[in-house]
Amino acid sequence: MFNKITIIGCGLIGSSLLRAISKRKLSKQINAFDKSKDVSSFIKNNLSVNVCNDILDSVKDSDLVIISTPLSSYKEILLSIKSGLKKNAILTDTGSAKKEINKIISNFNLQDVFWIASHPIAGTEYSGPESGSAELFENRWCILSAEDEKQKEQLETLKIFWQNIGSKVKFMTFKDHDHVLSLTSHLPHAIAYSIVRTAINNDDKFRNDIIQYSAGGLRDFTRIAASDPIMWRDIFIDNSENIIKVLDSFSENLEEIKKAIQSKNGEKLIKIFSSTKKVRKEIIKAGQDTEKPGFGRK
Amino acid sequence: MFNKITIIGCGLIGSSLLRAISKRKLSKQINAFDKSKDVSSFIKNNLSVNVCNDILDSVKDSDLVIISTPLSSYKEILLSIKSGLKKNAILTDTGSAKKEINKIISNFNLQDVFWIASHPIAGTEYSGPESGSAELFENRWCILSAEDEKQKEQLETLKIFWQNIGSKVKFMTFKDHDHVLSLTSHLPHAIAYSIVRTAINNDDKFRNDIIQYSAGGLRDFTRIAASDPIMWRDIFIDNSENIIKVLDSFSENLEEIKKAIQSKNGEKLIKIFSSTKKVRKEIIKAGQDTEKPGFGRK
Repeated sequence: MFNKITIIGCGLIGSSLLRAISKRKLSKQINAFDKSKDVSSFIKNNLSVNVCNDILDSVKDSDLVIISTPLSSYKEILLSIKSGLKKNAILTDTGSAKKEINKIISNFNLQDVFWIASHPIAGTEYSGPESGSAELFENRWCILSAEDEKQKEQLETLKIFWQNIGSKVKFMTFKDHDHVLSLTSHLPHAIAYSIVRTAINNDDKFRNDIIQYSAGGLRDFTRIAASDPIMWRDIFIDNSENIIKVLDSFSENLEEIKKAIQSKNGEKLIKIFSSTKKVRKEIIKAGQDTEKPGFGRK
Repeated sequence: MFNKITIIGCGLIGSSLLRAISKRKLSKQINAFDKSKDVSSFIKNNLSVNVCNDILDSVKDSDLVIISTPLSSYKEILLSIKSGLKKNAILTDTGSAKKEINKIISNFNLQDVFWIASHPIAGTEYSGPESGSAELFENRWCILSAEDEKQKEQLETLKIFWQNIGSKVKFMTFKDHDHVLSLTSHLPHAIAYSIVRTAINNDDKFRNDIIQYSAGGLRDFTRIAASDPIMWRDIFIDNSENIIKVLDSFSENLEEIKKAIQSKNGEKLIKIFSSTKKVRKEIIKAGQDTEKPGFGRK
């Protein structure tokens, strides 16, 4: 139980945190700040939390401050709040890439503040506070990363916080996080954007047919490709090194399939398709399957 | 109402047809043939249809013969059944590529048999008769293609058949079908296979982590990449010309995104992502969205 938690940024993830903290009574006081007036008034009208007009005021006396905004705004936010952070406060976030933002935050040399990164692997294709829910984090993984191994007590506190809103928690280094996520999330998103552009832009004559018959596979990529553009711009720029690497490796794999198709090498195709079928079984075994569409997640 | 319908190939699609025809009482007699003894005995034990041991016997006196097997087996099947087809019977299929198989069937020069291709855009990632259901075709598109415009009456009969099992029917030329489907279905499948191979094969150290955190996007591609290998080998070989063309265009689009990431061109990325977000809205507007995962469909 915290005395005061502050959420900065009240979009899909931030507003879901506000709802979850409220519902599970995890803090005596809950502060919310968002630079958008529309978002602030939505939160004011729909949630029982304290909406602050001033970002510096919002973090005062907070035991836990969670930044839940696009990665590109972290620096400006840190500049605005650093003088108001409580001694021994835990500072965390919900961003999808870690290494670069860790550099930014480390450069601030915050004194007596414990910076531990969080990445809840949860979300939908929809953005904004009206799409949030108190249950968004239930049974989802949350990855914690920290540089300083000495913060054991705070890591434990933050772990329990995420567990209290229903998540399973895993610790990973910043570097490993960015590598693993570049494969499991950033690569699929880059590809989805390319697929939708290929299918829709290049062929005006059949545009309507393509929309109409999109249930054969394409439709489900459009769900990923509908995720928040600013959030994804920031992720791609932030984790560019890993993403470029996996895109290169993806292109090599695609080239191999293309060659097999071109030479009508049925044996090779069967070999490729059978290997990916096995992966599916492992994912089901790992309990990572769901009957719900899994798209647009951060 | 038909006097006799024959289904050749009783996997996911064929067994679903048997169930749907049975349930809606669309034929006085229903014949089923599958070359696999396991499949035949499953059908015998679970469905009230007439399971035939001989493929030639199975089509005798049938008004409607539906081939529901991988594309590569059509030639052999035609060789086996051509002498038994009833005068004025309708011959159709459920394959996902059309132009090449139309050539094969046309070369048989079947006399007094009406060949009209069907492609029900329905399916799941699962294969085999145990995964079929009578409702598989409900509210799904079925695309009909025929070369001979004179077959109006038979086209109408077949259209009503698909409507009776719940589908919406559209007519398309063989060529247009293969082009549109290469974008809406074949491209997404080729990509899904490549993504899963990129994420899983190249990185043994993080293999378990990647499976564990696959909910961030990857998981949903593995669903597509788990579709039946033989069926997909045949589609890729059959429609190779179109597929190679769209893969080239996809690679160009991906290269553009890669360059924008490499040069950290945020403006360009936002432009790309915003354009694909719009497509999603059009698909929802076209009634092509669903809350169920849409994967592995033919």
